[in-house]
Amino acid sequence: MTDQSPSSPRRSGGRAARRALRAAPLATDKRPVHAGLRGGQLRVLSDLDIANIHEAALTALEHIGLADAPPSGIEILTRAGAILGEDGRIRFPRALVEDMLAVACKDVTLCGRDPGNDLHLQGTKVHYGTAGAAVHMVDVEGRNYRESTVQDLYDAARITDQLDNLHFLQRPMVCRDIADNYEMDLNTVYACTRGTTKHIGVSFTEADYVAGALEMLHMIAGDEDTWRARPFVSNTNCFVVPPMKFATDACRVMEACIEGGMPVLLLSAGMAGATAPSPIAGAIVQAVAECLAGVVYVNAIKPGHPAIFGTWPFGLDLRTGAMSVGSGEQALLTAGCAQMHHFYGIPGGAAAGASDAKLPDMQAGWEQMCSNVMAGLSGLNMVYEAAGMHASLLGFCHESLILGDDLIGQALRCVRGIEVTEETLALDVMRTTCLGDGDKAGVGHYLGAAQTLTRMESDYVYPTLGDRMSPKEWAEKDKPDLLQKATARKLELLAAPSSAAFNPALDSAIRARFTIHLPP
Amino acid sequence: MTDQSPSSPRRSGGRAARRALRAAPLATDKRPVHAGLRGGQLRVLSDLDIANIHEAALTALEHIGLADAPPSGIEILTRAGAILGEDGRIRFPRALVEDMLAVACKDVTLCGRDPGNDLHLQGTKVHYGTAGAAVHMVDVEGRNYRESTVQDLYDAARITDQLDNLHFLQRPMVCRDIADNYEMDLNTVYACTRGTTKHIGVSFTEADYVAGALEMLHMIAGDEDTWRARPFVSNTNCFVVPPMKFATDACRVMEACIEGGMPVLLLSAGMAGATAPSPIAGAIVQAVAECLAGVVYVNAIKPGHPAIFGTWPFGLDLRTGAMSVGSGEQALLTAGCAQMHHFYGIPGGAAAGASDAKLPDMQAGWEQMCSNVMAGLSGLNMVYEAAGMHASLLGFCHESLILGDDLIGQALRCVRGIEVTEETLALDVMRTTCLGDGDKAGVGHYLGAAQTLTRMESDYVYPTLGDRMSPKEWAEKDKPDLLQKATARKLELLAAPSSAAFNPALDSAIRARFTIHLPP
Repeated sequence: MTDQSPSSPRRSGGRAARRALRAAPLATDKRPVHAGLRGGQLRVLSDLDIANIHEAALTALEHIGLADAPPSGIEILTRAGAILGEDGRIRFPRALVEDMLAVACKDVTLCGRDPGNDLHLQGTKVHYGTAGAAVHMVDVEGRNYRESTVQDLYDAARITDQLDNLHFLQRPMVCRDIADNYEMDLNTVYACTRGTTKHIGVSFTEADYVAGALEMLHMIAGDEDTWRARPFVSNTNCFVVPPMKFATDACRVMEACIEGGMPVLLLSAGMAGATAPSPIAGAIVQAVAECLAGVVYVNAIKPGHPAIFGTWPFGLDLRTGAMSVGSGEQALLTAGCAQMHHFYGIPGGAAAGASDAKLPDMQAGWEQMCSNVMAGLSGLNMVYEAAGMHASLLGFCHESLILGDDLIGQALRCVRGIEVTEETLALDVMRTTCLGDGDKAGVGHYLGAAQTLTRMESDYVYPTLGDRMSPKEWAEKDKPDLLQKATARKLELLAAPSSAAFNPALDSAIRARFTIHLPP
Repeated sequence: MTDQSPSSPRRSGGRAARRALRAAPLATDKRPVHAGLRGGQLRVLSDLDIANIHEAALTALEHIGLADAPPSGIEILTRAGAILGEDGRIRFPRALVEDMLAVACKDVTLCGRDPGNDLHLQGTKVHYGTAGAAVHMVDVEGRNYRESTVQDLYDAARITDQLDNLHFLQRPMVCRDIADNYEMDLNTVYACTRGTTKHIGVSFTEADYVAGALEMLHMIAGDEDTWRARPFVSNTNCFVVPPMKFATDACRVMEACIEGGMPVLLLSAGMAGATAPSPIAGAIVQAVAECLAGVVYVNAIKPGHPAIFGTWPFGLDLRTGAMSVGSGEQALLTAGCAQMHHFYGIPGGAAAGASDAKLPDMQAGWEQMCSNVMAGLSGLNMVYEAAGMHASLLGFCHESLILGDDLIGQALRCVRGIEVTEETLALDVMRTTCLGDGDKAGVGHYLGAAQTLTRMESDYVYPTLGDRMSPKEWAEKDKPDLLQKATARKLELLAAPSSAAFNPALDSAIRARFTIHLPP
């Protein structure tokens, strides 16, 4: 083989190749942060606290139990050993809970359509992604809230697909432009799947819709077996209506999803002070009790089915009764839940990174970072709502999603932590720098040290949009505005071709079979 | 005594009193957060990591030592047992370091002129405050950087005085309108002291200036004995020029301050990758080594003199060589240092809460929260630069300072943590809410529960300026802008009378003795 070969990539010369390499993003294994870094350095609960919360949750399940299971659920749960009371509530003997915890899936893989995007939930591994059911889009330039559409959802998927620090796309907003719920659910699957090869979370409104969605997913996967081997969409089941009631319809959806081979998120979203006890500890107890009931439910249907322990207690502004998600209390609720997941050894998730602010302003920044970094440091497996979420979950914002990637990059850097080794303790470098080496005097600074240069890419996370200029340089560059930069980047990301696009034949087949609202 | 008494406050009726009570701030002991909450839930270093860092620091002191001590310092240190090498460096046998750690002050009280503002530094108690040496003021409305003045400094002191979550005022900016350094230092003391009764930190340029400053402080205190009994100003000593050199002049300033009864902050501000090793661990090693040298220095002069272990390593953007303080690496540097302080059992401080952003935007919010909340959760005694600091320490912003109070309030809520008790586990409340009580059915929500109502003020931190409105309400209220609200609050705070104002006789006496630039 020579350089004369017309097909040789070397024809263009080494320089171009090096230039391309430098312009390309860092290879995954060279990146300073990535999906699945291990947290756990933060422990807001002591071991005794955890034991007390566990004990209280078991007591609640045994004595209070849950109302409103569907007939199918009553059958499934009582067959497993739960007790149906005369008051219609199902109570859970602690031995039943313990037995089901023993068989529950401890190591959930959430597949991406691209296997490189698979998430391995286990231990204290941390993953960040979107989630929610916002009904508004935040228009940053117009400072406006408008109804969210399927195009907005598709754009969010396309953007998320290209952001390194967003590891999954759970549907963050509702397609308000699709009136029919069945069509909305199917188009949600379509828009998310066409937009990203990362793992996707959706939430079906009714059990009857699941069959249609599975049919579409089998088409996208190729066939049912391929889908079942690597299900790249999971379902969020709001299977309880706190306090301590099953959500009858959502339970039926869950049964259908399990049947269809779809991983499930057992989501309990109580609000501390409204639908959950006001103290943080009590809100965690109730969320844990409800999710334990879910673990029994899932494993009674299919032992070891992949399910995520979704304790999502939210805060409340008790002065107004309005939901509040940006507070320190919220960060503690989520961090405490992460520790309960580790106690059970079951993959878990909770909400963090959402803001009460209406726009991506300074408040949004501090609120999003507070719960995001604490969730990561607590080793939360799935950090839901981690970017783009405003107005206490009512509004989603593409610019904020993009800025969230920078924000989460720094949070992940914190999760990665401090490596203490002989090399990083740097005594030798310090000695040479201060005292010199042989005849050479010490230079008195580390700027040119080999260690500094070799570690500058592997140790430091550089912001994409975050600004580090001096005031002088900033003024010379016409004082760039963070939000305007985010809008420009949004347009750039949306102009790029989608890595997840369907081939035309598949797209036509889907369109022939289903009513698809998004243009081809 | 009857209601007829003309001087009785009850004449105005109970209703007005209740109204006044409700409008007044919460009594200190009722507040959900306050100075001195205990952190330590976050441990970014393992016990082995800490031991290794300690060992490396001792080795650095023994083998590398520090250059450039002033003659007085050489005399003080060698008399204590340090060794002056032929290369002019002073090396520290580990037994000397250990002996001085044994006599060092473990429990520093930083006094406020109002004793209610005293800070008790000990264990993992956390306090937030300003600091820095910014040369610019950030004009938010004009998006402009201009030189900072003594009036700006006084205003910062007045604002800090009125913010609950700022526990001390260390001079955050330099009075660029005072050309003479002596006058600048004296006017800094004057402006800070006249602006707040919280503890104040300053930094003297030359040893000769200390006498004049002490004279002013004696006048403000009443006399020298009163000053020495409760010194309400401490001095920041940048006593080293990293790597591993004493700052000759600053050492002489330190000696004068100790002589004058002033607590000192032993500040080592290396930049990882430039004046300190690039790895986080190495930067901490060097900062610890330098501060241990400071502990020996101080305690060799006066055993047990109050000194704060000021490991302030900063980050660097290695792509440009510019300082960077808003990164995850910065948060880790600071959190790791806090653990080293606890290891030595000596009160310590470090920098957190500063931003690289030029304005109080979303980036500023996430950067300020990241390091602030991690510093608090690590149990850092003194969190310096916690509010108002922009452009990698070059710019200070009053609006950002005010918003920082909200931000730190939430960080403090996280530091307070989760109380797990029988009451907060809330099983009884859960049972009554779900199952009812006797004949009464359960209401199915917690909004009216006695527990919810009694804890709504003591458990939850409500933002002052942070927005929690629904999009609808927000639109109806003309979409209030966070920064405009902060500017309005700034004007309100600056219009209030100063709690720290000098009586006219004292002010005249100070003005007769010193050149004071601030108008009366």
